[in-house]
Amino acid sequence: MAGMFITFEGGEGSGKTTQIQLLAKWLEDQNLGISPLVTREPGGTSGAEDVRNLLVTGSADKWLPATEALLMSASRHEHVERTIKPALAAGQVVISDRYYDSTTVYQGIVGGVDRRAVQALHDLACGGLSPDITILLDMDVELGLGRAHGRGGDETRFETKGTAFHQQVRHGFLALAEAEPDRICVIDAAGDVDSIFAKIRDAVAARLKHLQTMPANG
Amino acid sequence: MAGMFITFEGGEGSGKTTQIQLLAKWLEDQNLGISPLVTREPGGTSGAEDVRNLLVTGSADKWLPATEALLMSASRHEHVERTIKPALAAGQVVISDRYYDSTTVYQGIVGGVDRRAVQALHDLACGGLSPDITILLDMDVELGLGRAHGRGGDETRFETKGTAFHQQVRHGFLALAEAEPDRICVIDAAGDVDSIFAKIRDAVAARLKHLQTMPANG
Repeated sequence: MAGMFITFEGGEGSGKTTQIQLLAKWLEDQNLGISPLVTREPGGTSGAEDVRNLLVTGSADKWLPATEALLMSASRHEHVERTIKPALAAGQVVISDRYYDSTTVYQGIVGGVDRRAVQALHDLACGGLSPDITILLDMDVELGLGRAHGRGGDETRFETKGTAFHQQVRHGFLALAEAEPDRICVIDAAGDVDSIFAKIRDAVAARLKHLQTMPANG
Repeated sequence: MAGMFITFEGGEGSGKTTQIQLLAKWLEDQNLGISPLVTREPGGTSGAEDVRNLLVTGSADKWLPATEALLMSASRHEHVERTIKPALAAGQVVISDRYYDSTTVYQGIVGGVDRRAVQALHDLACGGLSPDITILLDMDVELGLGRAHGRGGDETRFETKGTAFHQQVRHGFLALAEAEPDRICVIDAAGDVDSIFAKIRDAVAARLKHLQTMPANG
């Protein structure tokens, strides 16, 4: 089969990492003939991880919104061309923790970067690669920030932007999902891990079956 | 008077740094009431210098051309908004070692990044700020690379791209100068330092006089 590109989106502390691990294990168990690739943004190549380090550390106002969008797109271009596209070409299922929807929301809708400028960045960075399915983990902002705070570490720059910012992020993601319901699957991320995963697995399984019955397009 | 924005462009080893220092000293001696600001790209703010470090070190193929264009534009946006625009608003003459023409040439004309994508990056990064005058130091590529090699240091990533690459860069800059002769002043950079500077000084003085006799536009 041709590869499949799955992205996870959502606010801080929405449980993306945990659910991605469960999904990768489930995919492994499906015996697709090739292991899934789990990756993340910003990051996913050596150079892109260097850019990530500039983005996720330091003070909240370290970068202007358009600078963030440009840096995110720079790391994304490396990620797409050097990691994601080769894996898809080899038939792997690629699961990415964040992709272009995060830039559309954080820097575009919330940060105020012009919508056409954001689209031009996606065109340049992604070379036409859209996800086959996007899982949006939606949850209460205060609850998510509390969880994110609990995990520690120094990648706290976006967390420190405050509750009002993260409320706008949540509404931004939900607006995207409303505009693209076929691609973006909204999952209520407030329940227990297993029942959330059951919904994700069903959404991915349906899409996987759909892809497997389609002629490969490459 | 309103500030004036002067940029220097040219290949490796064309003498930009030396000529910029001479021009800054000459401007200082003109008693304009405020010192000129000398800055550079990529760089010019603390964050932008971090991006510079990613760009100018490492192997020649460390970044894809579109990634370079995105990283250059990210550092440029910080530079424009946090350094150049405030200085111009305060009435300073700003001299920058490289600006958007370098991206147009290195990543666009030579790197193959689509012309409209490059323009979209300039629109996002520069917020409409064009140089009042651009000094293009033009010289033989082999001679320039020899000089650049002689100066040492670890910022050698672009130097290592080879002679054919730098020939294309030279032709790219000359093509830009042909398209914008009012803004871009081509100076033969092969002569002695003082006679090259005399030409630069005359070009800047004419432009300065022109600006001083115009009503301030802000």
